[in-house]
Amino acid sequence: MPAPRLTGRVRIVGTGLLGTSAGLALRARGVDVVLADASPAALTLAADYGAGRPATEQDVPDLVVVAVPPDVTARVVAAELAAFPTAVVTDVASVKALPLSELRALGADLARYLGSHPLAGRERGGAIAARSDLFVGRPWVITPHEALDPAALALVEDLALDLEAVPVTMSAEEHDASVALVSHVPQVVSSLLARRLIDAPAAALGLAGGGLRDTTRIAASDPALWVQILSANAPAVTEVLRAFRDDLDAVLALVAEPDAAGSRRGIAETLAGGNAGVARIPGKHGQDRRFSQLVVLVDDRPGELARLLTDIGDVGVNMEEIRLEHSPGAPVGLAEISVLPETEPRLLAELTSRGWKIAEAWQ
Amino acid sequence: MPAPRLTGRVRIVGTGLLGTSAGLALRARGVDVVLADASPAALTLAADYGAGRPATEQDVPDLVVVAVPPDVTARVVAAELAAFPTAVVTDVASVKALPLSELRALGADLARYLGSHPLAGRERGGAIAARSDLFVGRPWVITPHEALDPAALALVEDLALDLEAVPVTMSAEEHDASVALVSHVPQVVSSLLARRLIDAPAAALGLAGGGLRDTTRIAASDPALWVQILSANAPAVTEVLRAFRDDLDAVLALVAEPDAAGSRRGIAETLAGGNAGVARIPGKHGQDRRFSQLVVLVDDRPGELARLLTDIGDVGVNMEEIRLEHSPGAPVGLAEISVLPETEPRLLAELTSRGWKIAEAWQ
Repeated sequence: MPAPRLTGRVRIVGTGLLGTSAGLALRARGVDVVLADASPAALTLAADYGAGRPATEQDVPDLVVVAVPPDVTARVVAAELAAFPTAVVTDVASVKALPLSELRALGADLARYLGSHPLAGRERGGAIAARSDLFVGRPWVITPHEALDPAALALVEDLALDLEAVPVTMSAEEHDASVALVSHVPQVVSSLLARRLIDAPAAALGLAGGGLRDTTRIAASDPALWVQILSANAPAVTEVLRAFRDDLDAVLALVAEPDAAGSRRGIAETLAGGNAGVARIPGKHGQDRRFSQLVVLVDDRPGELARLLTDIGDVGVNMEEIRLEHSPGAPVGLAEISVLPETEPRLLAELTSRGWKIAEAWQ
Repeated sequence: MPAPRLTGRVRIVGTGLLGTSAGLALRARGVDVVLADASPAALTLAADYGAGRPATEQDVPDLVVVAVPPDVTARVVAAELAAFPTAVVTDVASVKALPLSELRALGADLARYLGSHPLAGRERGGAIAARSDLFVGRPWVITPHEALDPAALALVEDLALDLEAVPVTMSAEEHDASVALVSHVPQVVSSLLARRLIDAPAAALGLAGGGLRDTTRIAASDPALWVQILSANAPAVTEVLRAFRDDLDAVLALVAEPDAAGSRRGIAETLAGGNAGVARIPGKHGQDRRFSQLVVLVDDRPGELARLLTDIGDVGVNMEEIRLEHSPGAPVGLAEISVLPETEPRLLAELTSRGWKIAEAWQ
């Protein structure tokens, strides 16, 4: 492990998933980490786990990382700025404009405050284990503002790099609009879609396929956390949600009168717009490219999927994505494998020759 | 391969994905299959492929399977009923009430018509290869009506069983309401969500994670086919979409005023409703059970995922689902593995001891 970029002491306030994971990773690189948490039990657990040592009054930090729930972030950041007048303070809350404006209202020393947001960890409830590799390869958004001391920016970038994250710089407003679009509104829409299933007949749910599973997967997210996120990013979420609602109203009017002049064309254009939008989501290597898919039948017993993937590895083709899908009661599963289009014909031929049944293949 | 239940001749009209796949599977069991298609080229291709032989005027069928696009289904079914006065006719269109009412209006002999809908194949464009195992383990919905001859019902059930599908019986209205809920409305919502991305800044798309990918995956579906499906099932789709829109309006009002009395509670209840709805989607074995997840870091090179799955197979734990996720530019991927909750602690311990890095684990 190379030497850390951060040479001073780091104080982590809040020993949940993000704070503890950051502590573990920094300790692994030899950084001096001190921990604080409102809950003595949580603090002891994180320290026992190896995320750092409990902070004492003598432990003056160079950098403070505030990793507390979104609704108390600004208050805790302000307290840390006041308690450590030479330290740079960052936070990891998933909304950035509101804490900044709250700190401005509190008269905090904004030259030393720089908000950030690592897109790591899943926003789900339950017993989530902190891991030192949580941030590896993930975007770490940093949101500079006009009052910021440039030295503070360099320090938070060093933090992101020491955690092996990918620093991405944008304004707080740009960040909040971005996550409203790519994260917060999809969450609301998925929850609303899943909500329709509450009173659905069991026979209807028995017809559920991969489409329903995909669109509603994140509806299992933790309501308590998401109330805070949606409330803190209300203006940006409202704007995207209103545009979505307007589109919905338009398509609803068309579907309600499918034989009216222009209805079918309008529905087709809506669906084609969806094609164009989804094609813009970057692939694995940050490129805007589409993959080819192979759907392979896999017997429902341990080791079968491993055997398939061993065969794919032997062929020398790199999988870009894989999804496994089962029909209720079926003795076989379907493995949907995405590969670069130029490798698909060879993989199809090789797998067929090795006896695998290909349910579908498309470019 | 056991002897088929169908002993007579089957005529398949329409040699696209579903028709050709059914022909391949029936031929593999020794059933006499004759094929018809409006396109001579498509017909020859399917026959060359082994899905049956081109039909002649002498080939009187016992069962006709109409597998043509939804908008011409009723017309083709009526023609087949008239041409073969002793045959039972079924279709495989993904909407069921409209063809039935169209046939009633046409004065067709409904005693011999029984609509069905195999939930197989993916509704996507592109070069989709027909396969004899397309229907294996998939639900095959059969929609009896009051004018039906019971012998016709038995024949279509035999067809589904010969194709190794799982016959499910419900009324046409119940079917259409069910697929509106579990398939058609999720398609519309996913397309609308993806549509918001058309003009999004590239920086925003760079923050996309698994949630956005999941919710917009089916937005890549074929617009031409989906216009037909949505138009044919307009009443049921409109009803579910209206209820969704009403929920959306309600949550939009709450998010627009997050600090108003009752707003946070209302948002939390919406999200909790999503939790309750998604929990009702049956799992792999048709049970209403939830899985535990492990997220494992996998190096981005051929063979690594196979090695992981071989290790999981060695441990003797059966994976219920697997998803692979990459961050743009990251040298590692994340494999999210779902297992039965009681097997999760053992798998976590075994994988860790074999050197795998576990990014997250939750019950």
